[in-house]
Amino acid sequence: MAGSSLGIIYRITTWGESHGAGLGVVVDGCPAGLPLAENDIQSYLDRRKPGQNRISTPRKEADAVEILSGIFEGKTTGAPISMLIRNTSQRSGDYGEIAASYRPGHADYTFDRKYGFRDYRGGGRSSGRETIGRVAAGAIAAKVLREFGIELFAYTRSIGPVTIDPEHFERAAAAETPTCMPDRDASALAERFLSDCMRSYDSAGGVIECVIDGVPAGLGDPVFEKLDANLAKALMSIGAVKAVEIGDGIEVSTRHGSANNDAFRIQDGRIVKATNHAGGILGGISDGSQIVLRAHVKPTPSIFSPQDTVNRDGEEISISIKGRHDPVIVPRAVVVVESMAAITLLDALLVNAGAKMDSLKAIYKN
Amino acid sequence: MAGSSLGIIYRITTWGESHGAGLGVVVDGCPAGLPLAENDIQSYLDRRKPGQNRISTPRKEADAVEILSGIFEGKTTGAPISMLIRNTSQRSGDYGEIAASYRPGHADYTFDRKYGFRDYRGGGRSSGRETIGRVAAGAIAAKVLREFGIELFAYTRSIGPVTIDPEHFERAAAAETPTCMPDRDASALAERFLSDCMRSYDSAGGVIECVIDGVPAGLGDPVFEKLDANLAKALMSIGAVKAVEIGDGIEVSTRHGSANNDAFRIQDGRIVKATNHAGGILGGISDGSQIVLRAHVKPTPSIFSPQDTVNRDGEEISISIKGRHDPVIVPRAVVVVESMAAITLLDALLVNAGAKMDSLKAIYKN
Amino acid sequence: MAGSSLGIIYRITTWGESHGAGLGVVVDGCPAGLPLAENDIQSYLDRRKPGQNRISTPRKEADAVEILSGIFEGKTTGAPISMLIRNTSQRSGDYGEIAASYRPGHADYTFDRKYGFRDYRGGGRSSGRETIGRVAAGAIAAKVLREFGIELFAYTRSIGPVTIDPEHFERAAAAETPTCMPDRDASALAERFLSDCMRSYDSAGGVIECVIDGVPAGLGDPVFEKLDANLAKALMSIGAVKAVEIGDGIEVSTRHGSANNDAFRIQDGRIVKATNHAGGILGGISDGSQIVLRAHVKPTPSIFSPQDTVNRDGEEISISIKGRHDPVIVPRAVVVVESMAAITLLDALLVNAGAKMDSLKAIYKN
Amino acid sequence: MAGSSLGIIYRITTWGESHGAGLGVVVDGCPAGLPLAENDIQSYLDRRKPGQNRISTPRKEADAVEILSGIFEGKTTGAPISMLIRNTSQRSGDYGEIAASYRPGHADYTFDRKYGFRDYRGGGRSSGRETIGRVAAGAIAAKVLREFGIELFAYTRSIGPVTIDPEHFERAAAAETPTCMPDRDASALAERFLSDCMRSYDSAGGVIECVIDGVPAGLGDPVFEKLDANLAKALMSIGAVKAVEIGDGIEVSTRHGSANNDAFRIQDGRIVKATNHAGGILGGISDGSQIVLRAHVKPTPSIFSPQDTVNRDGEEISISIKGRHDPVIVPRAVVVVESMAAITLLDALLVNAGAKMDSLKAIYKN
Repeated sequence: MAGSSLGIIYRITTWGESHGAGLGVVVDGCPAGLPLAENDIQSYLDRRKPGQNRISTPRKEADAVEILSGIFEGKTTGAPISMLIRNTSQRSGDYGEIAASYRPGHADYTFDRKYGFRDYRGGGRSSGRETIGRVAAGAIAAKVLREFGIELFAYTRSIGPVTIDPEHFERAAAAETPTCMPDRDASALAERFLSDCMRSYDSAGGVIECVIDGVPAGLGDPVFEKLDANLAKALMSIGAVKAVEIGDGIEVSTRHGSANNDAFRIQDGRIVKATNHAGGILGGISDGSQIVLRAHVKPTPSIFSPQDTVNRDGEEISISIKGRHDPVIVPRAVVVVESMAAITLLDALLVNAGAKMDSLKAIYKN
Repeated sequence: MAGSSLGIIYRITTWGESHGAGLGVVVDGCPAGLPLAENDIQSYLDRRKPGQNRISTPRKEADAVEILSGIFEGKTTGAPISMLIRNTSQRSGDYGEIAASYRPGHADYTFDRKYGFRDYRGGGRSSGRETIGRVAAGAIAAKVLREFGIELFAYTRSIGPVTIDPEHFERAAAAETPTCMPDRDASALAERFLSDCMRSYDSAGGVIECVIDGVPAGLGDPVFEKLDANLAKALMSIGAVKAVEIGDGIEVSTRHGSANNDAFRIQDGRIVKATNHAGGILGGISDGSQIVLRAHVKPTPSIFSPQDTVNRDGEEISISIKGRHDPVIVPRAVVVVESMAAITLLDALLVNAGAKMDSLKAIYKN
Repeated sequence: MAGSSLGIIYRITTWGESHGAGLGVVVDGCPAGLPLAENDIQSYLDRRKPGQNRISTPRKEADAVEILSGIFEGKTTGAPISMLIRNTSQRSGDYGEIAASYRPGHADYTFDRKYGFRDYRGGGRSSGRETIGRVAAGAIAAKVLREFGIELFAYTRSIGPVTIDPEHFERAAAAETPTCMPDRDASALAERFLSDCMRSYDSAGGVIECVIDGVPAGLGDPVFEKLDANLAKALMSIGAVKAVEIGDGIEVSTRHGSANNDAFRIQDGRIVKATNHAGGILGGISDGSQIVLRAHVKPTPSIFSPQDTVNRDGEEISISIKGRHDPVIVPRAVVVVESMAAITLLDALLVNAGAKMDSLKAIYKN
Repeated sequence: MAGSSLGIIYRITTWGESHGAGLGVVVDGCPAGLPLAENDIQSYLDRRKPGQNRISTPRKEADAVEILSGIFEGKTTGAPISMLIRNTSQRSGDYGEIAASYRPGHADYTFDRKYGFRDYRGGGRSSGRETIGRVAAGAIAAKVLREFGIELFAYTRSIGPVTIDPEHFERAAAAETPTCMPDRDASALAERFLSDCMRSYDSAGGVIECVIDGVPAGLGDPVFEKLDANLAKALMSIGAVKAVEIGDGIEVSTRHGSANNDAFRIQDGRIVKATNHAGGILGGISDGSQIVLRAHVKPTPSIFSPQDTVNRDGEEISISIKGRHDPVIVPRAVVVVESMAAITLLDALLVNAGAKMDSLKAIYKN
């Protein structure tokens, strides 16, 4: 099925496997007239690159993007933007032994059941490298959104038991700590925790948070194309994500209505909310407040300690996964979460352009 | 925008407002040859009816479904199935006073910002009555799924601070308790808690869980049409839902890989998982285990105590909501969660029919 | 499959069978703020009503529309507009004998092969009555388009051998002649031709032309969502249409480039084309000239003379079709062609709203 | 807008401009398990290559395809198949002078109006080279269809005034004549006609016919996803096509029902049609007969004689187009028509897999 595309007007189609010729994305529906260069994309891709510090895989990947179409004289033309990232660092030999066995926590078994066989090299299509196309498309979406005053900021909220402290929140730190935590103390603690994980051949999970400022009220469509519904899909579609929250999320279930409702009030002549438990979305439509999202990420399934499993022939075996694997996915997935949020939000912004006669008349003046 | 449709092959389109002529749904893409009668739908709709006990609004709604098309001689024909539920119990007078003010926690403000004005009667399109179309479409999806041995079961897991006890789990109780809890003791506690809520003119939230048995391995498509991604969208699109979990959900972020991975093993000659932390989905594809979902529901935003807000003229005011409102949405939303899961799963099953040459050859034998 | 929906932003979903409870359409994505009443729809539906003169079936159908949702205080709200037309004049007895046999030129055989069985009453879902939903949705689309200065005009260009004479073209005549020809002389000839057809128990075909004025340049999207491609699909999806032309259509294949190219020139300070062989569309995008379409309609397959065919049991038989059938479909299909063109054009107009940064900035001013 | 994608299950997304880095297509939804190699694609691409004889442009284009993903061990995996064709023969200098003027019959003006500016080099996105992605995707579709006994055959039916003679029809000739005509005599005449065109700095149009054998009855979905409607869209989306016919097409409008209806009869124990005026499709669904399509192609708009037009500054000018252009598009478009038909038919075949309970039960046996 056409599962590799997302979006209605800003529509992206990703392709590629971990150990094939390369990976990429076609971005269709980007508005014409946006200044865009490879560097806009590369700076995002670099945020998900491995090998940048000791808590990520020592694998080196250049992941250099080539824009193949859709740009002319430095601006988007309205034509599809095709981007290609060649694979350069495959060591297929590392994966040979898992060709016939099913790694716990991975999609080996389900791909075999669905398709009859699979590209087993490095996880093939279900590898984390699949997110490269998402990030390239997200970089463009984020750039369009900035033209409308919309800014996204994603960061690591927790790794294993270590959660950032709102008192120590420092936005700049997220770009500087190896954990992408906006709290240098928490980051140091998390690094120590991860070192312990690695020593015990184990892995960890965590939580990624994304806040979006400057979103105009009115984005998202009632019933099935609600902004929160599409954000939930976008985040849950990222490999290891097992739960998604909007605003106060899971906390609302134990709260009273009187404590959870956000009162409206007037500030500087505009309608605002006194609190933001809702996370910026009411009835599936943005309300003009900050949008707040959280994705809960499972521990890396590739661990070096031996595990029980079965092989394709239906025999119970024990496997020890080799290769190069991050002890935690979270820091490298931060930019993926930000990208998926940007893609979803831009599509909602484009779709909303035709929501009322007044908007259309602003465009089609006779 | 076309936000009222969902699904690729099994595609539903809902319509209707709380206080208009009626509500309904068009179900397109239902396979031909399924025995179907109005009673199959009505039994689902009755599960979301209010007025059945003291913890739901005393409003009486007949909510009788009329099938207008798509059935001939007691079977689906492959043509779209249009279903109509007339509104009968509107008391518009109750809502007159909120026409010009924005209720906290509701979509009044965002609809006005998006569309320029709104049908304010009873919440209009953003009313909980909008879910009637979902449930009618879900009843059909669930019936198709049963033909393939797939059974869905949703229930209330918690209301406010009261959570069901796995030791007291009794499936039949969910259909008999007013809370839809499969634990009679917890239900009694929850009822007491809700009585307190009502006495203090307040409301409560809760958690709905849905388990699905008999799902064959292989449903869901990699990358953006993952089964868990679409389930997350389906559940998050339900009015008051603010978080969605798959399998162990939020717990995975604090767990080690060694504890979170589900080992494969052989049982009765088939590959199964020794545990099911993943909730039946690996890499976005069903793995043959039980699928487990949870939706976190916010407290009913309509509460009877006075609240601060603003009106359309930008004046700060205090409002007291009148009318008939449930102190908790959860029990009536249980069947909505089950319906959305059924709709999503059936679509995945239909889309998957063309995933490999072998499947196609089973259909198109020359 | 979800074959009953059309459009990306202005998305319509039709349902209903000839002899079921009724027919209808859900229109999703209509911009909010359009004044709309049942009479806007009814006046279009009345144009396709039978029984209005001797060249159409004497069957009387009230075909009164009920708007069930999406309108509040006389204006569209942005919510889906559901419309219902009850069937009132079914005489199922007429069709009993064709339950088991396959009428030549009809879809009886193909529905049976596709779905295993069919609703045989009056053609079921493949009846011409299926177009009622299209016309109701087209009436709304045409009303939106008029707000932007876009006017559609469809009419009968030929019936059998009788073609309108450009010299006698009179726009008003199309609404007054029983043939919908904008040429009173040709219409009289065509009526005589049709009387002969009826006397010999036979039927005729014809050509419907549609011209659209006031379309701004820029609608339609390159490659697969070209305006002409979508118009071709829209028209070819109408029951008896077997060919579609844009502009000079089939004539271009025998022409030289020097004769077929439309020169650009300046008129009143604006860029226009000196000729319009292209029919208002270049590269799939409207060029600001009049759009010109033609649909070639086959003769009514239901004829009263005996025909050879087979029955469900695989026996060769002869059938004589009874019931009430138009000797020519064309005049009643004129409004269907106009509706399909309107639906397609409005969708292109809405989709185009996000094509360039400038348009978006006209809507989302910070 | 996302205009670069087509299809529901077999979904293709093309990208690329005439003079950019390259062109390509992502094919999503191809069933897993199909043997596929670059040569399967290349043989199709070679059919649309220019420079092969004197009636096509002397431009040499290697147009060598590289498959970047979706294949493993010689078979499709179910993952998207990304294909890249690098541009190698651009001579941008040839096009510099048309940067600021609007060529008659081209999309220069409409692109400027839609997007504000355009990639003018060689027509950019609206160049005939855009069809490379279609042909690559069509080659795969045709290969899948052959596995089900479905064979497509497209050829030139006419060029200018020269039409093939059914008496001289020779299938092999279509692959051997420079015109792609399956009639060697007609081809010789057409070549002479084209030589005259070129001498007078002019161009010609023609008609492409495509017949499809072995299609099972039942493909296509009623109302809007009719097989003929989607074929019409697919063909009309090809650059220079201005009319599309199914079966007897335009001739049906002047015919009587008694002459146009195809009688059913029994042959070798199977239901067949005695004639095939309908072109293999009844009610939008394949009937098991040969499918017959025709596309009417306009003369190449690029001609070497001077033409009146305007420039971007709104001045009337005369231009003489330079560069390398085919005097007729038809022979090179034959494989494009065949490809678009294959893509459309395969998608219908995949979508139809879930049309009835019996088909589904053949796949999902418990």
